[in-house]
Amino acid sequence: MTFAPDPAFEAGSLAAADWPLSHVRLQDDGRFPWLILIPRRVALVEIGDLSAADRARLMEEVVAAGALVRALGGATGRSIDKLNTAALGNVTAQLHVHVVGRRRDDGLWPDPVWGRPGARPWPQAERRRLLDLIAGFSPPV
Amino acid sequence: MTFAPDPAFEAGSLAAADWPLSHVRLQDDGRFPWLILIPRRVALVEIGDLSAADRARLMEEVVAAGALVRALGGATGRSIDKLNTAALGNVTAQLHVHVVGRRRDDGLWPDPVWGRPGARPWPQAERRRLLDLIAGFSPPV
Repeated sequence: MTFAPDPAFEAGSLAAADWPLSHVRLQDDGRFPWLILIPRRVALVEIGDLSAADRARLMEEVVAAGALVRALGGATGRSIDKLNTAALGNVTAQLHVHVVGRRRDDGLWPDPVWGRPGARPWPQAERRRLLDLIAGFSPPV
Repeated sequence: MTFAPDPAFEAGSLAAADWPLSHVRLQDDGRFPWLILIPRRVALVEIGDLSAADRARLMEEVVAAGALVRALGGATGRSIDKLNTAALGNVTAQLHVHVVGRRRDDGLWPDPVWGRPGARPWPQAERRRLLDLIAGFSPPV
């Protein structure tokens, strides 16, 4: 059995990169720079299902994703006030971590972004630019 | 300057343990077994503010907290369907990680628990029992 992201991720996000541990997706919601990290292992649900070595990798990829989300925010002219990082999985069980760039004026602040309506796809040129930035980013090794 | 939890945590949670890295608190909400880990370092806001060694410790304490939350759920007769783990900090900036035990019948499923009304303090006997279980739990070293 080989890794594949749950097809449910295709509805709202775009494949953007493959890092040493994680498949990285850009959430297609122009309100927030928002990455999803999906560890490229099979049959994982909880963080504790990862090996200790993979958990350490995931932590470093989460921190790198935070830096990248800040860069994406800067590239769209909206600097980030706070990172929101979460592994929930109540809707899609496959282990994944959200790293979301939040601003005090983002319309949902201070509430969390999950389970709330209002997603707006990125305009095509901006989406292309963000995907290029993600592709050019050097993940931790 | 020495570590102290932000006084804002006192409104809704109880000091429960001090692990090698994190001060551990029990959220006083009888709807969910819910722990908050606050790394005992000063002036931290984002996960990336921790040293790499402390990040690795935090990851292991988060996984241990997940096992403990499952045990707390079992002790209250309500086994956990899914762990929800998140570092948000939009309301209280001091770095902290929530580890929440969720059930499909918990009333908020599948939505996240943050920023929603309805908290109900634990009944006193149950609160005492959960605090004893947390105090008796061996954290990762």
